[in-house]
Amino acid sequence: MPPAAESPLIESVLSVRKPYVLFLGDVQERSDAKTALGLRDWCPEDCIGQLRLPNCPVDTGLPDLAPGDAAARGAGSVVIGIAPIGGRLQPQWLPLLVQALEAGIDVVSGMHTRLTGYPELVAAAERGRARLIDVRHYQGPISVGDGRKRPGKRLLTVGTDCALGKKYTALALTRELKKRGLPADFRATGQTGTLIAGRGLAVDAVIADFIAGAAEMISPANDADHWDVVEGQGSLMNPAYAGVTLGLLHGSQPDAFVVCHDPTRTRVGGMEHIALTPIEEIVDLTIRLGRLTNPAIRCVGVSLNTAALDEGARTAALADYERRLGVPAFDPMQRGVERVVDFLLTAAG
Amino acid sequence: MPPAAESPLIESVLSVRKPYVLFLGDVQERSDAKTALGLRDWCPEDCIGQLRLPNCPVDTGLPDLAPGDAAARGAGSVVIGIAPIGGRLQPQWLPLLVQALEAGIDVVSGMHTRLTGYPELVAAAERGRARLIDVRHYQGPISVGDGRKRPGKRLLTVGTDCALGKKYTALALTRELKKRGLPADFRATGQTGTLIAGRGLAVDAVIADFIAGAAEMISPANDADHWDVVEGQGSLMNPAYAGVTLGLLHGSQPDAFVVCHDPTRTRVGGMEHIALTPIEEIVDLTIRLGRLTNPAIRCVGVSLNTAALDEGARTAALADYERRLGVPAFDPMQRGVERVVDFLLTAAG
Repeated sequence: MPPAAESPLIESVLSVRKPYVLFLGDVQERSDAKTALGLRDWCPEDCIGQLRLPNCPVDTGLPDLAPGDAAARGAGSVVIGIAPIGGRLQPQWLPLLVQALEAGIDVVSGMHTRLTGYPELVAAAERGRARLIDVRHYQGPISVGDGRKRPGKRLLTVGTDCALGKKYTALALTRELKKRGLPADFRATGQTGTLIAGRGLAVDAVIADFIAGAAEMISPANDADHWDVVEGQGSLMNPAYAGVTLGLLHGSQPDAFVVCHDPTRTRVGGMEHIALTPIEEIVDLTIRLGRLTNPAIRCVGVSLNTAALDEGARTAALADYERRLGVPAFDPMQRGVERVVDFLLTAAG
Repeated sequence: MPPAAESPLIESVLSVRKPYVLFLGDVQERSDAKTALGLRDWCPEDCIGQLRLPNCPVDTGLPDLAPGDAAARGAGSVVIGIAPIGGRLQPQWLPLLVQALEAGIDVVSGMHTRLTGYPELVAAAERGRARLIDVRHYQGPISVGDGRKRPGKRLLTVGTDCALGKKYTALALTRELKKRGLPADFRATGQTGTLIAGRGLAVDAVIADFIAGAAEMISPANDADHWDVVEGQGSLMNPAYAGVTLGLLHGSQPDAFVVCHDPTRTRVGGMEHIALTPIEEIVDLTIRLGRLTNPAIRCVGVSLNTAALDEGARTAALADYERRLGVPAFDPMQRGVERVVDFLLTAAG
């Protein structure tokens, strides 16, 4: 148990009850069930089934469980694993969710609209003594950051942009550290990461003054040899979200960071008018800004998202970035992360 | 009227009704009446009186106005101009505020606790058809930033730390630009600035994802020769607030910035364990990060807070920083800002 876990403030880091039943409703497209499929891939041991309407064509491969069966098998939460159109629950989904709540199972959502905005769910939660948890909106007490060095080691994933693998990279690194018997925790800073870990805090949803303070709470003081692997958000050079990125960098005070990049991307995602900042500049800015709270900060790897490349181009890209940045380059989805963890433990161990 | 002022989103930038009556309650120390004294100094033409209890020793020099007199003289708002202990209104103040509201005068506060948390004020506001305005908590609809270049010119004040003159520098520069007949607006990003300008948005109070978007709304598209002088917040190297600073930099997309500094400060304010980052590093980081949304960004001046120096040391410090940074150094509270505005108009005009 890390020392800071006894602080009363730690309650602001959200806890979600496992195991999960993944709610699919009657979603028609697999691409709209990304959260459910991500949970099945990243924490299969925590996903005991799926809950869906009879006409739902999407299948996670997990057993179908009616709410009563799910409760009998000890389900902790039904997770809304889909991104519905308009960000709202559909009326035909509510009866299943009401049954789950009445059976004492929490309902958890990462949607923009709040579960507590549905009176029938609020009433059912009261009847079943279950909780409605809005991962995106959770706001507990948070202090402002103070930048004081905390015991324990920390790695942060940063990126040249959003949506290119910061969460998956952090998960893969945590898994490899644990595989080697090292004390390590994935520290979630977004809603899907929080669901995977069962614990976390969506830093982009806190009041701006508290970004760094939230990051400090997410990776509290720990044993000297313990690694927190912190899920990064945004990019220092994303015109919308850089503030979140910088507060997360300062609050995480990482000893090491891995920079995540998509070698095929030349413009900021969703912003054709903004050129992507070169990866070398992101690395340099991360070091110079990160030194404020950890003078020892260093880059230990490049995580390349090579999904769009064939095997030859992938090998060439990995060699190219490894040469340019002087640290191991890897794609956590395509190949292992052993080399970068070797390098991390040599460089920052 | 700037073009973007017709956007429906612009309503998220708060408007406060002038003229003001400054509420002092029975505050005992002048230092606890900083907001009232700042408003008297920076917008004297908007302050028609003060409202205080008989035993209040603090005096702004403005005429004492009872709520009825204030209404008769056209007061728009009673501004809570004091920082009460514990951040809460004292019970003995409420009757005066109730009378003001019943007379149709808005009550405006920058306190942490919300005015709407006092049922007697809510009821009085309804009776008088007046508004309760919490400057610190206001949350209208805000879009995420998109980094698109807007017409008009912008200057941002940045700093090596908090609380060393960013707001006053921006106000002094705006005043000088207007004195020269140039179209210019002070753009407030904090609660006191909002009260001075009668319009603004506290960027540190928005949800983290929307910092840059809020900054974009605060200085919307304008005429090509119009200057927005944007009040800076925090510092890129403040462990608590840097995220706000970076989002404000990206969203403001400044053509020019003035860096504010206290030459006697060696540690971050309130954080003895964090060394102040050298001013040259702050300038360089501001340019490199700011280039994302405005490649033409440049430093046009150093605003030194020399209140703690005698005249000889002040002259020496100004010469030293001017030499080090190659731009005019000035103290807006001690001497004029003519030279820096000359430089601004030559360099970025």
